[in-house]
Amino acid sequence: MKQIVERLAEVRRRFSDHKIEALIVPSNDPHFSEYVADRWKCREWLSGFTGSAGTLVVTKTSAALWTDSRYFLQGEQQLSGTGIELMRMGLPNVPSIEEYLIEMVAPDGCVGLDGRLFSVTEYHRISQSIKPIGLKIVEDIFDHVWADRPAFPQKKAFILPQSVAGFTISEKIEQVVRTAKLKKEDIFLVTALDEVAWLFNLRGADIEYNPLALAYAAVNKNSTSLFVDKEKLSNEDLQTLEANGVRISAYDNFEKFIDQVEITHNIILNPRKTNILIRKKLQANSINIIDDADVNGVVTSLKGVKNEVEIEGFRKAMVADGVALAKFFSWLDENLDSGKVTECVIAKKLCEFRAQSADFMGESFGSIVGYKEHGAIVHYFPTPETDVEIRREGFLLIDSGGQYRTGTTDITRTIHLSKPTQQEKVDYTLVLKGTIDLSMAVYPAGTRGSQLDILARGPLLQHCINYGHGTGHGVGHFLNVHEGPQSIRMQENPVTLKVGMVTSNEPAMYRTGQYGIRTENLILCVPFHSNEFGTFERFETLTICPIDTTPIEKELLTPSEIEWLNSYHEMVFDALSPHLAGKELAWLEAKTQKI
Amino acid sequence: MKQIVERLAEVRRRFSDHKIEALIVPSNDPHFSEYVADRWKCREWLSGFTGSAGTLVVTKTSAALWTDSRYFLQGEQQLSGTGIELMRMGLPNVPSIEEYLIEMVAPDGCVGLDGRLFSVTEYHRISQSIKPIGLKIVEDIFDHVWADRPAFPQKKAFILPQSVAGFTISEKIEQVVRTAKLKKEDIFLVTALDEVAWLFNLRGADIEYNPLALAYAAVNKNSTSLFVDKEKLSNEDLQTLEANGVRISAYDNFEKFIDQVEITHNIILNPRKTNILIRKKLQANSINIIDDADVNGVVTSLKGVKNEVEIEGFRKAMVADGVALAKFFSWLDENLDSGKVTECVIAKKLCEFRAQSADFMGESFGSIVGYKEHGAIVHYFPTPETDVEIRREGFLLIDSGGQYRTGTTDITRTIHLSKPTQQEKVDYTLVLKGTIDLSMAVYPAGTRGSQLDILARGPLLQHCINYGHGTGHGVGHFLNVHEGPQSIRMQENPVTLKVGMVTSNEPAMYRTGQYGIRTENLILCVPFHSNEFGTFERFETLTICPIDTTPIEKELLTPSEIEWLNSYHEMVFDALSPHLAGKELAWLEAKTQKI
Repeated sequence: MKQIVERLAEVRRRFSDHKIEALIVPSNDPHFSEYVADRWKCREWLSGFTGSAGTLVVTKTSAALWTDSRYFLQGEQQLSGTGIELMRMGLPNVPSIEEYLIEMVAPDGCVGLDGRLFSVTEYHRISQSIKPIGLKIVEDIFDHVWADRPAFPQKKAFILPQSVAGFTISEKIEQVVRTAKLKKEDIFLVTALDEVAWLFNLRGADIEYNPLALAYAAVNKNSTSLFVDKEKLSNEDLQTLEANGVRISAYDNFEKFIDQVEITHNIILNPRKTNILIRKKLQANSINIIDDADVNGVVTSLKGVKNEVEIEGFRKAMVADGVALAKFFSWLDENLDSGKVTECVIAKKLCEFRAQSADFMGESFGSIVGYKEHGAIVHYFPTPETDVEIRREGFLLIDSGGQYRTGTTDITRTIHLSKPTQQEKVDYTLVLKGTIDLSMAVYPAGTRGSQLDILARGPLLQHCINYGHGTGHGVGHFLNVHEGPQSIRMQENPVTLKVGMVTSNEPAMYRTGQYGIRTENLILCVPFHSNEFGTFERFETLTICPIDTTPIEKELLTPSEIEWLNSYHEMVFDALSPHLAGKELAWLEAKTQKI
Repeated sequence: MKQIVERLAEVRRRFSDHKIEALIVPSNDPHFSEYVADRWKCREWLSGFTGSAGTLVVTKTSAALWTDSRYFLQGEQQLSGTGIELMRMGLPNVPSIEEYLIEMVAPDGCVGLDGRLFSVTEYHRISQSIKPIGLKIVEDIFDHVWADRPAFPQKKAFILPQSVAGFTISEKIEQVVRTAKLKKEDIFLVTALDEVAWLFNLRGADIEYNPLALAYAAVNKNSTSLFVDKEKLSNEDLQTLEANGVRISAYDNFEKFIDQVEITHNIILNPRKTNILIRKKLQANSINIIDDADVNGVVTSLKGVKNEVEIEGFRKAMVADGVALAKFFSWLDENLDSGKVTECVIAKKLCEFRAQSADFMGESFGSIVGYKEHGAIVHYFPTPETDVEIRREGFLLIDSGGQYRTGTTDITRTIHLSKPTQQEKVDYTLVLKGTIDLSMAVYPAGTRGSQLDILARGPLLQHCINYGHGTGHGVGHFLNVHEGPQSIRMQENPVTLKVGMVTSNEPAMYRTGQYGIRTENLILCVPFHSNEFGTFERFETLTICPIDTTPIEKELLTPSEIEWLNSYHEMVFDALSPHLAGKELAWLEAKTQKI
């Protein structure tokens, strides 16, 4: 605690140099990644709060940290004694960051922030909200105050061959040029790491769970630059990039490149994905800036629609993942009475079984292994402090996924370890009905996810049960497990589902203090039929893994839902059985029986 | 035809007086009503085209009329020989009105329009689209060229008692003042006829099907003015208005009132519902204009949520309507072999049976009676030219509704007059499943109609069938049968469903050249349940009329759908049987049997 107080004091001592009265410290990196490398964990270093989401505000005389309900308890514990007030977002009478700043900073004062860590959109929003208080971009204070600050990550990266990516780099650049309708004088900035990764078939390991390399890019009709540290790539990959017409420059050189853009050029950027420092630099040089016409980003929209090679890769990854899970569940069944199986052990074992695949490149996110009441905590990750032994009773929820060289997986299975109660059976079956009903949907081309969400949520709603999260998120191809632009959720998202999109299908229900149930598959949008009534599409379920039938209350399923489940299990058996033998094959056979 | 050519010439002769090169003639009245009084049928008078939707553009040397696919055939016939080109909206290579104007008018030219017939929003949209061509507000040319132009409608109007409206006029004014957060200096304009009607509990007969009186209103915290011709109202009603603090002024005086607004006032108006002439007048006097913060209009949003008295009124109207329909269907069954029953006869008979209710005030729209292939024409209205005899075969679709003193009805029933084919049964049952599934929905408070649309459309979509219209529109309380702000349709509408809203539920399917099937009830949003998962709402079906069970393919219905249908028919029998006897009662009894 004392350390935190000292760090805060050290940061405050810098305020006068910058003529600021307060500093906002977010959880971002300069690319607005979902996970950030250690170097950018400044908020964590300065506050001691390790949660993934949180924004710290330090004024001359106070400090406060905003986080959401997932982290209220952790925030209380970790901030205790630091003098940092915990701001519980979403609770009544909790001020917003902007309201707090207006309260704490004099009207003629100035609030500082690191321009690399705020998007253009976010910066303007804050600036508008705290008027007349000024908002000032300051240099990275942590470079001076954080003595042992981790360096920029320098993990090896590589280029995916066309046989995995489907398109060559130059073909993808051509797609961007065409889609963004780039004119000769336009320079299109690519600033989100997964967009850069997609465009250059580039994969890396600079960020946990996300196979990304730190990089920026600038696309022009005649020349495209990739800003990435050459040391990360093999000579062969560097040659591949050059052969695709890509000029390579160091990551550090991107800001210099921005400083040197010639006045004859237009810069096209996405204000939600580009940091304000870049925009300010361009403005200072009077460069004409055009916002990306696609609010989600041209590259994100292209990336969201998987090509046939990527889809084949997903199918291959699903078999590998299904085999790993079958082995894992078979192991679990065999070891459950050993007294040594805990949530943390399961998380480790899951990774071990996945790692048996030659294509496995790492986990796609930290496994959620929630036994009994832990399953009701939506973002629960087991830690040594919370770990519990798994016994032959109650529900066990496991949400995990892998990065494979040919695709990304994300799967949730909830299994019952004994004889389910009637309530458990009803709850489980309602969730399953949701998963199945969305899987079976037929919809007109041009449908938005928000129109279909009720199919997954409906069976639960009929029983006055709901879940507080979305039903589906996009999934990258050996890329981020959470990606846009589509979603399936109650909130409106104008993006329409398109053939080739891969989305999760994860209805759920949570009984606080008792258990959580979630059944999640990945689903692919595929063409179905065209006739005088229009063009219709539907989903193909990609995930290949048995769904526990023990807790099913069969009476609640319709004949077509039962048929779907039986035919799904037949497919699962056919796909996985060639790769299994002995006990594992017996487990698969037992778990894919018709109901 | 010659007459039309002469009229066009006469209009063109006025162009030079106004210094315009072209004139846009819409189908609007100054209040943007769905139906307009004869006085405003200028487009019809000038073009000869009688369709309800169409915009005419006359230039010095050409003329063209834009209409949608419902009216392509009619447009061709009626415009033939007039020199007016038919512009088939929605077909490829058909220019928009604005593109046409850019093509036909010189860049330094000017296009004229009657400012009373274009909303602020529409005016600005056109003005932007045709730049640099100017857009000029001209006086009502038709007052000079249309010799026998109908006068302003002067039908009698009246004030609904509180026992029917639920709130007194002063209570409603208070609701508007509170909801629009009116300050002392604010004047809130009410320009849509149904908004004025709701606010003053005013009903009239100036417009076909819509029980409206021509009127404007201006609401201020301290004084509210209603601009309506006093002659329309009884002394008693005038006294009621005065007793509620309403100052009455002639309809004609509204523009004078606008001219005389004092500079100390703010005017709040809805740019989508207020004509541009009013805005221009205010601007000319430098009056501060504020847009209604509610894009749908504060009054429309208040009006959309029915109070308990209105809901009781709806229930009463539904019984009257159900009784009329039972008598009608019983009559139809008895007279079908007479050889004298045609679509037109049915439309007339429907009105006669409804008129037997003391509360009946007129039809809420022109009855759609579509026999066999006519049923597949979505907006078909039988005319002597299209009329056909109804025989004991095929589907008959009847969409009709009544204005009752206590509520408005809108109901569609499709009946089969013989032995349905398998395809007819499947089609019919899929539509019915949609009606039932939406009726049974449970949804979280705050749900939008677009989230629920798939429940009505889903059973059809599973068979790759869709319908090209929305599933549900708001319905007024003894007011317009189509009203906002809510809707249930594929297109996003940010308005959430609220307890007290009345909406139609009308899935359908149309086999061109064969038949149309639509089953429509009105549904009311009601509270359902609150628990740890949230607040849940559902629908109560208001419409009381048997649904034909003959064409049902029972195998396609789920047990809960069958239960819904049987319990609905039990309710229908209980509600209507006390009002029927003899053959009519026997008909009801037969038609409400359990399946």
